[in-house]
Amino acid sequence: MKQTFKVDLEPVGRRIEVEPGLSLLEIAQKAGVDLVAACGGMGSCGTCLVRLVTGKLSSLTLTEEVTLTAEQIAQGYRMACQAGPESDIRLEIPPESLPVAQKMQIDGHETEVELDPNIVVIEANLALPNLEDLRSDLSRANQAIQNKGYAPLHGELNAYIHTSNFLRSSQWNGRIVFQPKPHSSLLITVLPPRTDCLGLAVDMGSTKLALYLINLETGVTIAKTGVMNPQIAYGEDVVSRIAFANRSEENQRLLQTRLVDTLNQVTGELCKSVNAESHQIVDAVIVGNTAMHHFLCGLPVAQLGAAPYVPVISEPLEFHASEVGLQMAPGARVFMPAIIAGFVGADHTSALLATQAYAADRTLVLVDIGTNTEISLIHQGHTYTCSTASGPAFEGAHIRDGMRAAPGAVERVRISNGSLKVITIGNSPAVGICGSGILNAIAEMRKAGILDTRGVLCRTDPRVRIRDGRAEFVLVHATETGHGRDIIITRKDVHEIQLAKGAIRAGIEIALQEAGISADSVEEWVIAGAFGTYLDLPSAVRVGMFPNMPLDRFHQVGNAAGVGAKQMLVSRKKRAEAAQIIDRVNYLELTIYPGFTERFIQAMYLSD
Amino acid sequence: MKQTFKVDLEPVGRRIEVEPGLSLLEIAQKAGVDLVAACGGMGSCGTCLVRLVTGKLSSLTLTEEVTLTAEQIAQGYRMACQAGPESDIRLEIPPESLPVAQKMQIDGHETEVELDPNIVVIEANLALPNLEDLRSDLSRANQAIQNKGYAPLHGELNAYIHTSNFLRSSQWNGRIVFQPKPHSSLLITVLPPRTDCLGLAVDMGSTKLALYLINLETGVTIAKTGVMNPQIAYGEDVVSRIAFANRSEENQRLLQTRLVDTLNQVTGELCKSVNAESHQIVDAVIVGNTAMHHFLCGLPVAQLGAAPYVPVISEPLEFHASEVGLQMAPGARVFMPAIIAGFVGADHTSALLATQAYAADRTLVLVDIGTNTEISLIHQGHTYTCSTASGPAFEGAHIRDGMRAAPGAVERVRISNGSLKVITIGNSPAVGICGSGILNAIAEMRKAGILDTRGVLCRTDPRVRIRDGRAEFVLVHATETGHGRDIIITRKDVHEIQLAKGAIRAGIEIALQEAGISADSVEEWVIAGAFGTYLDLPSAVRVGMFPNMPLDRFHQVGNAAGVGAKQMLVSRKKRAEAAQIIDRVNYLELTIYPGFTERFIQAMYLSD
Repeated sequence: MKQTFKVDLEPVGRRIEVEPGLSLLEIAQKAGVDLVAACGGMGSCGTCLVRLVTGKLSSLTLTEEVTLTAEQIAQGYRMACQAGPESDIRLEIPPESLPVAQKMQIDGHETEVELDPNIVVIEANLALPNLEDLRSDLSRANQAIQNKGYAPLHGELNAYIHTSNFLRSSQWNGRIVFQPKPHSSLLITVLPPRTDCLGLAVDMGSTKLALYLINLETGVTIAKTGVMNPQIAYGEDVVSRIAFANRSEENQRLLQTRLVDTLNQVTGELCKSVNAESHQIVDAVIVGNTAMHHFLCGLPVAQLGAAPYVPVISEPLEFHASEVGLQMAPGARVFMPAIIAGFVGADHTSALLATQAYAADRTLVLVDIGTNTEISLIHQGHTYTCSTASGPAFEGAHIRDGMRAAPGAVERVRISNGSLKVITIGNSPAVGICGSGILNAIAEMRKAGILDTRGVLCRTDPRVRIRDGRAEFVLVHATETGHGRDIIITRKDVHEIQLAKGAIRAGIEIALQEAGISADSVEEWVIAGAFGTYLDLPSAVRVGMFPNMPLDRFHQVGNAAGVGAKQMLVSRKKRAEAAQIIDRVNYLELTIYPGFTERFIQAMYLSD
Repeated sequence: MKQTFKVDLEPVGRRIEVEPGLSLLEIAQKAGVDLVAACGGMGSCGTCLVRLVTGKLSSLTLTEEVTLTAEQIAQGYRMACQAGPESDIRLEIPPESLPVAQKMQIDGHETEVELDPNIVVIEANLALPNLEDLRSDLSRANQAIQNKGYAPLHGELNAYIHTSNFLRSSQWNGRIVFQPKPHSSLLITVLPPRTDCLGLAVDMGSTKLALYLINLETGVTIAKTGVMNPQIAYGEDVVSRIAFANRSEENQRLLQTRLVDTLNQVTGELCKSVNAESHQIVDAVIVGNTAMHHFLCGLPVAQLGAAPYVPVISEPLEFHASEVGLQMAPGARVFMPAIIAGFVGADHTSALLATQAYAADRTLVLVDIGTNTEISLIHQGHTYTCSTASGPAFEGAHIRDGMRAAPGAVERVRISNGSLKVITIGNSPAVGICGSGILNAIAEMRKAGILDTRGVLCRTDPRVRIRDGRAEFVLVHATETGHGRDIIITRKDVHEIQLAKGAIRAGIEIALQEAGISADSVEEWVIAGAFGTYLDLPSAVRVGMFPNMPLDRFHQVGNAAGVGAKQMLVSRKKRAEAAQIIDRVNYLELTIYPGFTERFIQAMYLSD
């Protein structure tokens, strides 16, 4: 007998009927509900918690027994990746398990760039075919192009089809858009008279996507937005997603499809907001870390998940938007700048470009903080670049009560004279703690002596209590939270932050060592990335993430990768510059760097 | 109440359930049964006859009343485009209405061509990635290419994906196949060691498709075949198909899909016959008339159906096989040589190339006979080219008992001393008469005095009878046929052949006039095309299709277009030559040529 179960997902109000054998995580994904699943459903992170409201689930697994607290178990919490239905069920998905809208930092420091896009627009008013002029449609368009000194057109069949249909419906008037090249011009589209040529710049982070719509004829950013990366539902960091993709070709296609669908949807909304249409987008520049780059292109990713972490393509890449299903002008192409290494993607190339860090004549360190943090030290014309696995702790993952920077997240903590104050995002009742909050809390706890340099909790502090023989710090009492449970910081949480900040600091130290200089010689510290924007710098220095330098040497520049993508979109010179950046980079692979482990252990200590 | 009818199609044994409102032709198409429908379902040709076996059909239309004979009506024959079911029905599709396997002439006179294909194969044995060598997969492949002096690779994402997957599964050994270009090499695929690189040459006629599989490393044709063009089900000539395509975008897509599906299927069979696989095909050259060219590419065709008959693209065209769904190597490209005009396609370019007619130092006429006949006169370094609508009469359409050159078709007629003999294809009982048969019959009837020069039947001949006041010639009596009905030649049939041969002759005369020479100055007459192979030359001269010249000046060269396609596949020099041919052509648009109509009327007379 074939049996199915009805599963109700609340509070999202989604219902789905499924056959036995699926995990709750798989069921939620099937229903289009993106649960946070930081480890990609491997059972190692405990971020996909759901609560059983009615019905029967499979028995607790060993993984759940060691991950969940007795209290959580008593309340009906389960790990969605571990449990499956054994009857019709109703589930509650707590806010912490949903990738809700977060504070989206997508802006960055901009500098003036001369307008020189990769496309040319010709206003064409072509002669009508008649029995004395039997030239093909393409020949007619070619004459208009060649009259202006450009090479004849070639392109994709779709571009030809659109061009012919359009010109014949518009009395042979239109704006022919093409990429000029020495021997032939690449046909992109024909637009109606008085219709703007638009370009799309995208920065694909592991956690969020930043999209910018640019008028390519003025260089002005006419619309922009940040949205969550839908792939979060399949793993919070790219390593988890690579593991997910490796399980089947279907999984890998799913990661690509979800990404492309979201990009198309958001692009459509951006266009609508300025009364434009997607097919006006004639050029695109997309940057992202190496894994996101490969996911978008559908390139194999298995080899990115294991040493030596080699990309399929590191070279600058240009392909037709239609090859991956991006909805733009019929012949529009997507440009993706060069990748530096398996864990240093084109987003870092883009950040080096936007900050002009690569061309600095002073000694400078660029730190682009994310799930992976890229570090470049520029010194005497050399660029020393490394990547360090800072992990998703700054996004709230792997932290007992961690969450992303969404409403209700504790983002600032102040401890003075024994009293403790927290500030939450949106001033909502606290439901968890985000990356900047926990960093801030640890810095304050260290200052107040509640933590020692090893990260061990002082058991005599009134807010420190012992559970199952382990010390934990009560940040917000249950009575003051939005969900009625204590928000606590455990020794393990402190350790996660020590790992994250230690990885960044170790990377910085190795780069300094490779250049043979001390931190003191660094004249400027440029901190980029969304987390880098919200980061409380004094806290970061206090916990030892950065060397103890005067704070006026630090600059927080926001989403430099997004700014770089925009620059490459409006300027061919900037694309050429980006290619040069790669040539200069001296890449340091930390996994084989002598003495890295010792540096890393040293860097995990909290400052005195 | 929603009603459906079951329709049984015999003898093919297909059953389909349909809603009311569809014609029998549409129902057959839905069921995947390709009926001959020479006019594309417009009700003007009477070639889509079916016979009702059981059940009830809609009433006879006026069109049917004027087209069908009383005898046919009595026997239950209907025009499939006119009738629709009014109950469950069973239909018999007579052999004449099915595009059965015909004598497939796909060979042509070949000349030696030096092997110089558009692809290069490099045997690669690449270094494995390791922590000291972090280059991307593409960089590794590039080194192998660049070591041999070629520019770095670029390509479609699909080609990169395949290359990476393949190299990683083969210990980095493989045969890298690419198109060499000055600044970058176009990646086609990577093949396993010791696997041959194959190429595909196709000549797409309105009626049939000729496919040739070539080993690109030896230049040898390893397999070949001819199949019916599946588009016949939607109209026997391209004008009918253009009308069909114009009715909806879906129709146009259908024409493309049916064509591509058939090409894929037949290519797969060809590969299988030599133990190869479609993905070994790394290059393709496809020729065809302008409409077939546009159908394959999905280019708009409406403008090809009305003056001034302008193609969307006349330039040489190269696109990725995947753009139209052709199944080949992941990055394989399709080359289509330049088109001369709306009714002179790349098949004629190809025929000019294969016959070397374009380079002749003597005066020469090339006539490529098909539904459209292309004529080129080469004289003193000039090429005068025109196209003439000879129509599908030579394929048996528009002829009372006409059929294509399939078993049972009368292909030769001999009349001497008052006795008449017919020879049929396959020596089967006669069921109709094919193009070469009717041409031969008319020549014999003229010789025997049964026809005068105007094409009027002599009413005193014993085989001529009067029906409804009109004279008709009984070619085969009902008792000797395969279907028990007389096979006759009507005055209208003779007129159709007069139109066809008159069109060809008028084109020849105009070309001669344009060059200022007489037919006598033409040293060589090259007759190409499938029909041109079966053509009885003395008959063709006797009816005045060609000027009355010594028969040893005529050469029948078979499928010259197919031979040209093969040459362009194995030789880049031949592709360049084809481009030059176009530049030399002096195209004569007959529809506006002064005096064409008079020439045409004159040319319709049968010779004295």
